[in-house]
Amino acid sequence: MSTARVEAISSSSNPTLKALRVLAQDNAAYRTQGRVWLEGDHLMRAALQRGQDLELAVITEAAMHDRPAWRDLVLHAPRVLMVSQKAFEQLSGLSSAAQVAAVIRLPVAPVLDPTAPSLVLDRLQDAGNVGAILRSASAFGVRQVLAMKGTAALWSPKVLRAGMGAHFALGLHEGLSVDEVLALRVPLVATSSHATVDLPQADLPRPCAWVMGHEGQGVNAALMAACALKVRIPQPGGEESLNVAAAAAVCLYEAARRAA
Amino acid sequence: MSTARVEAISSSSNPTLKALRVLAQDNAAYRTQGRVWLEGDHLMRAALQRGQDLELAVITEAAMHDRPAWRDLVLHAPRVLMVSQKAFEQLSGLSSAAQVAAVIRLPVAPVLDPTAPSLVLDRLQDAGNVGAILRSASAFGVRQVLAMKGTAALWSPKVLRAGMGAHFALGLHEGLSVDEVLALRVPLVATSSHATVDLPQADLPRPCAWVMGHEGQGVNAALMAACALKVRIPQPGGEESLNVAAAAAVCLYEAARRAA
Repeated sequence: MSTARVEAISSSSNPTLKALRVLAQDNAAYRTQGRVWLEGDHLMRAALQRGQDLELAVITEAAMHDRPAWRDLVLHAPRVLMVSQKAFEQLSGLSSAAQVAAVIRLPVAPVLDPTAPSLVLDRLQDAGNVGAILRSASAFGVRQVLAMKGTAALWSPKVLRAGMGAHFALGLHEGLSVDEVLALRVPLVATSSHATVDLPQADLPRPCAWVMGHEGQGVNAALMAACALKVRIPQPGGEESLNVAAAAAVCLYEAARRAA
Repeated sequence: MSTARVEAISSSSNPTLKALRVLAQDNAAYRTQGRVWLEGDHLMRAALQRGQDLELAVITEAAMHDRPAWRDLVLHAPRVLMVSQKAFEQLSGLSSAAQVAAVIRLPVAPVLDPTAPSLVLDRLQDAGNVGAILRSASAFGVRQVLAMKGTAALWSPKVLRAGMGAHFALGLHEGLSVDEVLALRVPLVATSSHATVDLPQADLPRPCAWVMGHEGQGVNAALMAACALKVRIPQPGGEESLNVAAAAAVCLYEAARRAA
């Protein structure tokens, strides 16, 4: 930790800051840059705890002086950029910028295991939903996530923020086609308001792959047709409309409850 | 429906549009204006289905000509403002503006029933979380929601959008104090990672009031101390950290499952 090189940067046209701004503000820039922007001490700690190396850290001058815990945190990186509060806010794409961030290499998921308990995200759009679902997956013990083409970019700053560190506990696979999902050798299970089997009474296969669909359009037809089981979440209130992250939490909870 | 007055407005300095812009963009403006901005056809239909009267509607010229279903919808209002796409986008505070919106009077909740099944929101901050929780409450049959002071404004455009119409099925009470919540005569139940009772095994009182706390700080200490029951949602994955809307969905599902 004592070998970190700390650089005070005052020019916002600094080329390193420019590249970081793209990484922090463009949802898919991690794919071209091969590295991920982690904003806030919580995500940085979560990454470190799971053995990720910080390549670079950024901290405001104020935090460097006033927040010893954050100073210790950034010193895990070999290179630390110290910037003004204003420069940090210009970097950040979040509505409330943190004062500390780091960059890690884009983690590589383990090889996809077609027999493992899985969660399939079929073109989910909302970063908050996707992050919340990753948290639920991690909490309820599903370790492998398959995000199909068209799903919100999993390592984008907004999904990371909503995921609260769950990313680092999961094997995340992105950009999958329908055929690649159909190659799973565990049964697919989806929720559907048209299903005749209610979740509490359903004979849930174990392991299985839960399929969660697009917020407006639901699960695509080819996947839905391939599902071994479709279950309905009973909604006695009469409004047949759960948020997809709420539905995912309920399904994963119910499956974990049975397995306990 | 044939008595609607349709006005084409081309000036963005039109005073009616100015007041609507405040209503659409300021999260708490409904409290001073006593009326609510409903953006998008889905919310408008949900309001109409629950017997709300549209006071005023706004639609883009393009939608007025190309979307007959939306034209029929706005004609439920006695006054319809027809504006350009650009003027509509300037009105809207949402990242992807709809092309149709309406204004209703702020609905008045029925008198608070201290013996009814309830949901308490203790300073929840995120509009998406609050909206998703209202959807879950409506879906799982909890009809009365008590939002404490400091909770995201329930009738703000972002909470409305996330709520997908659930607002109109619920009795929504805002700005409550701890004492007002403690005046409920149903037992309070909260989730806590320190609880010793797991949700699936818990003896859930019926009716009860579920308490959901601030995303970072959790339930405030006075309320937590007053809870008749604290339950833990088992999270075998090892990450003890569910999104609050996910936790709410799980609790309300479990309670509804028992009651079925």
